[in-house]
Amino acid sequence: MNFLEERINKDGIVKAGNVLKVDSFLNHQMDIALIEEIAREFKRRFHDKPVTKVLTIEASGIGIAVFVAKEFGVPMVFAKKSKSINIDGDMYVAEVESFTHKNKNQIIVSKKFLSADDRVLVIDDFLANGCALQGLISIAESAGATVEGLGIVIEKGFQIGGRVIRNLGYHLESLAIVDAMDTETGEITFRDQSAQ
Amino acid sequence: MNFLEERINKDGIVKAGNVLKVDSFLNHQMDIALIEEIAREFKRRFHDKPVTKVLTIEASGIGIAVFVAKEFGVPMVFAKKSKSINIDGDMYVAEVESFTHKNKNQIIVSKKFLSADDRVLVIDDFLANGCALQGLISIAESAGATVEGLGIVIEKGFQIGGRVIRNLGYHLESLAIVDAMDTETGEITFRDQSAQ
Repeated sequence: MNFLEERINKDGIVKAGNVLKVDSFLNHQMDIALIEEIAREFKRRFHDKPVTKVLTIEASGIGIAVFVAKEFGVPMVFAKKSKSINIDGDMYVAEVESFTHKNKNQIIVSKKFLSADDRVLVIDDFLANGCALQGLISIAESAGATVEGLGIVIEKGFQIGGRVIRNLGYHLESLAIVDAMDTETGEITFRDQSAQ
Repeated sequence: MNFLEERINKDGIVKAGNVLKVDSFLNHQMDIALIEEIAREFKRRFHDKPVTKVLTIEASGIGIAVFVAKEFGVPMVFAKKSKSINIDGDMYVAEVESFTHKNKNQIIVSKKFLSADDRVLVIDDFLANGCALQGLISIAESAGATVEGLGIVIEKGFQIGGRVIRNLGYHLESLAIVDAMDTETGEITFRDQSAQ
């Protein structure tokens, strides 16, 4: 069991409806030492990629992506979820459905910050049905950029997102893959990734 | 002129309607080395405060607040803008008006992550009319926590927020205070804070 799986076992809370709450250390309160360890692990897994930009989506991806960007020594860009009056018209757009909030958002990235020369590492905290990641991939490819890889902190292995993105040929690394959760006992079953 | 004012002069863009775009380095694309320098400067200005938690609001505050939290060796908590099905009912709530998006949001923080023992440093990227900061102060005080100070990257000195919060007696530090912007010439006038 890796450091993240241990922490999820210790502080994650399983709720009805396949909800895994990790808000005490990952996506509401953030344990900075843990986030730094997560960032170093992504650097280790993607160390051979010539990453020029880390791309994520607001909000909870941001606090992780900045530390990953620091590891690679590159800027971080975060996609925004709705059109702001402060953003120019010249932007990449993708449509994203939110499992959590049960709605659809446009996500946008200014064309100034992604180009065909960019080699992008996409980072997010959760992967479930994969809509957010697909939106980020779509935006990177609209820019003509290369998606060097995708780094996820927690993947829900019993939902389809991870399989779809791996089937499309992308290099996806999830630091913890939850294959099952028991609402009664609170037990969490992680996929064995030790062979990789 | 400090390092931040120099960067704003170099890369900030003045737009009609008193909009200052700093999206190439602060709140869409983030220059990590600059953000780290900002965090070190907040640590310097609040070094004598016994901070136990850094508090901010999604989304663009997060990438700054995590580095400030790292400087202080404490967790970061970010307020969320709307009720998520993943958040327990047991939370602090404040109402916040958004100047940028012309709407009202409830912001929420789980009661698990702020208590009467906490000494809070509030961090955000922008201060204009001060609604977001007032909401964060209200949440900290609902918890019985002490607000040790508020750190802002860019304050619009010609709007009322900074004056209100200083008049209330809070220790507010803004790394750059913009007193005027000229849409025609693009010139930005910073408040002289060198005497402080």
